[in-house]
Amino acid sequence: MPVGKDTFPFMHPVRGFRLGTAAAGIKKPGRRDLVVMAFDDSASVAASFTRNAFCAAPVQVAKQHLAGQRLRCLVTNTGNANAGTGQRGLDDARRICEVLADIAGCDARQILPFSTGVIGEPLPVDKIVAALPAALANCAESGWADAGVGIMTTDTRPKGASLQIELDGVVVAITGIAKGAGMIRPDMATMLGYLATDAAVAPELLQAMLTAAVNRSFNRITIDGDTSTNDAVTLVATGHSGATVDAGNREAFQSALDRVCRELAQGIVRDGEGATKFVTVSVDGGRDSEECLAVAYTVAESPLVKTALFASDPNWGRILAAIGRAGVTDLDVNRVSVSLGDVLIADRGGRAASYTEAAGQAAMDQEEITIRIELGRGDASETVWTTDLSHEYVTINAEYRT
Amino acid sequence: MPVGKDTFPFMHPVRGFRLGTAAAGIKKPGRRDLVVMAFDDSASVAASFTRNAFCAAPVQVAKQHLAGQRLRCLVTNTGNANAGTGQRGLDDARRICEVLADIAGCDARQILPFSTGVIGEPLPVDKIVAALPAALANCAESGWADAGVGIMTTDTRPKGASLQIELDGVVVAITGIAKGAGMIRPDMATMLGYLATDAAVAPELLQAMLTAAVNRSFNRITIDGDTSTNDAVTLVATGHSGATVDAGNREAFQSALDRVCRELAQGIVRDGEGATKFVTVSVDGGRDSEECLAVAYTVAESPLVKTALFASDPNWGRILAAIGRAGVTDLDVNRVSVSLGDVLIADRGGRAASYTEAAGQAAMDQEEITIRIELGRGDASETVWTTDLSHEYVTINAEYRT
Repeated sequence: MPVGKDTFPFMHPVRGFRLGTAAAGIKKPGRRDLVVMAFDDSASVAASFTRNAFCAAPVQVAKQHLAGQRLRCLVTNTGNANAGTGQRGLDDARRICEVLADIAGCDARQILPFSTGVIGEPLPVDKIVAALPAALANCAESGWADAGVGIMTTDTRPKGASLQIELDGVVVAITGIAKGAGMIRPDMATMLGYLATDAAVAPELLQAMLTAAVNRSFNRITIDGDTSTNDAVTLVATGHSGATVDAGNREAFQSALDRVCRELAQGIVRDGEGATKFVTVSVDGGRDSEECLAVAYTVAESPLVKTALFASDPNWGRILAAIGRAGVTDLDVNRVSVSLGDVLIADRGGRAASYTEAAGQAAMDQEEITIRIELGRGDASETVWTTDLSHEYVTINAEYRT
Repeated sequence: MPVGKDTFPFMHPVRGFRLGTAAAGIKKPGRRDLVVMAFDDSASVAASFTRNAFCAAPVQVAKQHLAGQRLRCLVTNTGNANAGTGQRGLDDARRICEVLADIAGCDARQILPFSTGVIGEPLPVDKIVAALPAALANCAESGWADAGVGIMTTDTRPKGASLQIELDGVVVAITGIAKGAGMIRPDMATMLGYLATDAAVAPELLQAMLTAAVNRSFNRITIDGDTSTNDAVTLVATGHSGATVDAGNREAFQSALDRVCRELAQGIVRDGEGATKFVTVSVDGGRDSEECLAVAYTVAESPLVKTALFASDPNWGRILAAIGRAGVTDLDVNRVSVSLGDVLIADRGGRAASYTEAAGQAAMDQEEITIRIELGRGDASETVWTTDLSHEYVTINAEYRT
């Protein structure tokens, strides 16, 4: 039961970036569970990977291959995360790269592999390898929507975002897809995002801009605080538009990239497991970003706050209690205020004098809720996005692995 | 639906420490919702309070009064937490101390006030004050069991622990009660614990021993990661046994105190909201306590691990993923192993070769489950206790405040 309207946007093609899918039969026969993305080796590629120490085999291989640049393909299978699989997992990830490289006429080190799905089961590598030629053969610049469906696991709908901007008189596309937040039956792993642009961007600059964008989007969402072993976001710049991102237009490109990443990240939250609410937690007036994030995540991940959100209960005491335990040094509670949407609910350490239950209830009854927290001790701000904690979340995640 | 047997232990009286209850009618008529504990001003008193920045009014007053020692009474009301109540809350807490001091013939600063219950509503101080004489009048050394019931809010059963030890040939009692982990309908606050001993202990030593014991018990439990605004644990040493705790017998006393605190803390977890499992998470082989605790709490508070526990699902991938995101620097996943009870489920970054689903399932089917994590990088160990995450938890915490 995702939050918000279910409309897949128009996906502007990215010149020089082609996507193809095939049915490898990993979990379900006929399901297009294999996605290949292909581009010239003149493209720059940037990526951001999970910081989980137990990172999956394909993440380890992708990190090695990314360092060499001159990449040609990204290959993603769903249905199996190839995580917790030891040496065999590494061998399997490398074999997929080798076979795809043979067909594409390049080196295995020019391929980045990705996997998402069950943790701890051996990858059915023969099935995947057999379907690679078909996936590569149907690669097309118009393949974004199919690829968006192809990378889904337990997502209830595909997530896409796309826009065009003008750089020095040239129209440039930034387009991306993502999959979310599911670790269910038996154990689905992973947030994955793939973005591409036909602007030309030097690899170091591309990485810097992706890191900045990820820190304002994918790294600001939380469904349940659990970080998967396979998370990865990749950005390919083909340069086929003829425009180049440089110091002069960098800011415009960054802003557009931020917007695409934010839309994808919020799409993941809206489709979070059991979500009935889309919740923005914004913290202002902190001394630094770190303490703003500590407060925002403590509120966003508090089970008591999340169950109150599920119940549409304007339970300001739980929000105050979460702020109070976020570990902010010398927090003066008399300077803290909290609003739900535009309704001031608490200030000076307690309920605001102007607050009425009716106003709080009206704010809580919305499907999209913003919790605004003012710390009153500095100029730093941070925002994170999350969901409520519903019965459906427990049902989904308590289901037996059978 | 608490976990484990429901038996209230025999409570050894503590000489010189008397407990009385009365019905003040704070929430329900006839319910004994007021508890007074009385002792001579020669007693030493130690206490450990919530670290939540939004601490309740009685906590602020109790901290001030504790500093002066020469205390005479502890007074606790249930049904209202007197938290988020601003200046009025402080005035109310002080008024209770003043009235009780008048009756008991002492100074208001010789009283420690405690409250638990609804957050953010004004304390019905007149009702409480009116019931103080009755509570003080029925104080008796045999009052532990009634007081254990008196301090309950949404607890389904009272929690008590009591033992006797011999110090230098003298029998000494250590007895305590606690209430737990409930923040429901509308917003019940607080873990409270009261312990007393008839040994004589100097105030500084008493505080040091209580702090140590709390760090191995009340500070090692987590139901949902939320810390309340009213948490407090108090230990009174009356000295009426004639035995004195000193350097020579300190270790024996500490060990007994640890045991009483651990039993009470575990009792709170067993009665945690919606609990169907009692879960011990022990982490060995860390470089220091800090990283052991980071791993233990990350696993214990992971919603994915907790829902798997609720489902009795031996989902080792979720445990590994939680360990991997606990922020341990340079964690070598190849040295990490995880056991469920006595069953090795994971080592060297993946499923153990010896592991079978049948063995894992047998371990998970127990009502009491131990997750043992070996980090393989040092000598430090830590243990925390927690519950699963059930539908009942969501139901309890999503109920409307009406």
